[in-house]
Amino acid sequence: MKLADLPTPCLVLDRQKLQRNIRTMAGNLARHKVPLRPHMKTAKSIDVARLALLGQPGAITVSTLAEAEYFASHGIVDILYAVGITPGKLDQIARLNASGANVTVLTDDLQAAEAIAAHPANIKALIEIDCGEQRGGVLAAEDVISEIARRLGNHLTGVMTHAGHSYQGRSIEEIARIAEAERSQVVQAAQRLRAEGHVITIVSAGSSPTGRHAETMNGLTEFRAGVYMFGDLFQAAIDTHARSSIALTVLTSVIGRPAGRLLVDAGALALSKDRSTELSPHDFGFGLVLDVQGEPALGGATVRKAYQEHGVVVLDPGSPVTAPVGTRLRILPNHACLTAAAHDRYYVVDGSDDVVAVWPRMNGW
Amino acid sequence: MKLADLPTPCLVLDRQKLQRNIRTMAGNLARHKVPLRPHMKTAKSIDVARLALLGQPGAITVSTLAEAEYFASHGIVDILYAVGITPGKLDQIARLNASGANVTVLTDDLQAAEAIAAHPANIKALIEIDCGEQRGGVLAAEDVISEIARRLGNHLTGVMTHAGHSYQGRSIEEIARIAEAERSQVVQAAQRLRAEGHVITIVSAGSSPTGRHAETMNGLTEFRAGVYMFGDLFQAAIDTHARSSIALTVLTSVIGRPAGRLLVDAGALALSKDRSTELSPHDFGFGLVLDVQGEPALGGATVRKAYQEHGVVVLDPGSPVTAPVGTRLRILPNHACLTAAAHDRYYVVDGSDDVVAVWPRMNGW
Repeated sequence: MKLADLPTPCLVLDRQKLQRNIRTMAGNLARHKVPLRPHMKTAKSIDVARLALLGQPGAITVSTLAEAEYFASHGIVDILYAVGITPGKLDQIARLNASGANVTVLTDDLQAAEAIAAHPANIKALIEIDCGEQRGGVLAAEDVISEIARRLGNHLTGVMTHAGHSYQGRSIEEIARIAEAERSQVVQAAQRLRAEGHVITIVSAGSSPTGRHAETMNGLTEFRAGVYMFGDLFQAAIDTHARSSIALTVLTSVIGRPAGRLLVDAGALALSKDRSTELSPHDFGFGLVLDVQGEPALGGATVRKAYQEHGVVVLDPGSPVTAPVGTRLRILPNHACLTAAAHDRYYVVDGSDDVVAVWPRMNGW
Repeated sequence: MKLADLPTPCLVLDRQKLQRNIRTMAGNLARHKVPLRPHMKTAKSIDVARLALLGQPGAITVSTLAEAEYFASHGIVDILYAVGITPGKLDQIARLNASGANVTVLTDDLQAAEAIAAHPANIKALIEIDCGEQRGGVLAAEDVISEIARRLGNHLTGVMTHAGHSYQGRSIEEIARIAEAERSQVVQAAQRLRAEGHVITIVSAGSSPTGRHAETMNGLTEFRAGVYMFGDLFQAAIDTHARSSIALTVLTSVIGRPAGRLLVDAGALALSKDRSTELSPHDFGFGLVLDVQGEPALGGATVRKAYQEHGVVVLDPGSPVTAPVGTRLRILPNHACLTAAAHDRYYVVDGSDDVVAVWPRMNGW
């Protein structure tokens, strides 16, 4: 099967680039002697997970309980559910763990900590630390952390943080500074809790940009990242990887040719409405157009508008482009996690236009 | 089952509001004596389609071939695939039609018209007319329309247009003017082609705003609209319906309580990154927060940030809100088509918090 034979729109995953990205991140972490707990929220695929775990039985991170169910059913049992838990979700965790999984939960909340400790299943939890993003988490210096730990009691196994604000970094130096804040905040939290008598075995930090640019990971017991596997235009813009490393594209067909434009059948659903690159040095609209081989095409044209099933590619004025209706193109995404989420499978290529595998992916909650 | 028992995030569909919205649109069209061909791209559900067809066997509009397959498999056979066709998709149309469906395709392209006429299956086609949106379509006054019609020959059954630019209308008068352009352009195209000897039986126009505000539909043989069934904050902003008519919400749980904010488990995937209301009179961020009963809550707070699985609800300074982790809320979406697309089912309520049905929905291509 060739890319020209596939229904469009669909996801194309370049296995060579994927494996190179996985090796690069593994190399970064080997240098720091910290194991990786890959975040599967981007790929949501057992086939990708197996590559990301590099042959180890492996521990992963997930963003939904549906991901936890899916990966546990495929034999990956050491799972961190890295979104704040609610008491109402504990029964599902308990059922999963009773069936052989080993799911650890996350909290920054006193009442949730109490509910975890009170639950009849022996559920393990990490405390979420805010290292500067100001999304979730408590500060290492706040007294509430001690009270959460006290309420968790021996359900507490560690601390976790995520430097999501590394996405706002605009230079390697700035991202390296954020990486150091990520590391030092979560290590300080671990030290405080140890001093208070708790056994802290997990000190977990991570994001793809800080995984790339951290100068030290001293004190961490594991690192988490996810989008590095595929990469995207936004991560390329902040130097997490080269643009040529992006492994994920959306295959699309030209469906119309109004003057100065091409309509394609990859619209807001196939690409997502994510506009991450809007404020980066180069605004790629809803994605950058490549030819069917994955090489630069149409003079760097981008998808400027995205209706539900129509993408509008604006051509350079006077462009000599002739792309008949039916012409195949590939679109590099702004944000791989959001783009992939509309699709139920990856058509896998190995650097050419031969489809060498079809890998299912899961979605939903 | 109660809303409090559901896993979050998930879609909640209020059947009373849905049925009222369907009756309202049916009333608008009955006044114009024009039949409705509901667009199923928003709902993607056979249960919603049956309500939208008001007990008739019915004709529908779809935006993907996967929708065509799905609805045909559920017995709705008269289907307009309202996105420009590519030659490569004709075999799938032919297979569908051979299995009992009656799918009509759309084109504005000379080569696609030739491919349709040359295909061994007898595939019927409409010519797409541009009534001012400048997305796809040819103008009624352009000579190319005659050449497309000539190439289609007796595969041509009509003309179609969509006033997508009615979404940019900012007053009822402006939308009524756009509705008149939509009507008059497609009727002129039909007249031209009839004068050239073609049999034009379908003269199709439509969008939810123009369906609400058109003053006349003279000359149309059918009208298409879709988002009116559910409604959303954007359509409410342009007076397609009242905000209280929105039938679709995302049920979510509070997962964290940083100062001045609530974190909820409906993020960019559950809500979509659609920001339609950004330029409307009131910017609702990624959605407006209601309580679990669907009533206004938290002083009109909105979701201001959307990470993959985290939504950030910003509270009024000094707000006395206490919403423990686990509290259920419902979020009104900016754009129902995009929000619904991340979910695989509707939990149906009838004006209370009792779940009276679960309706599956399809996605993908």
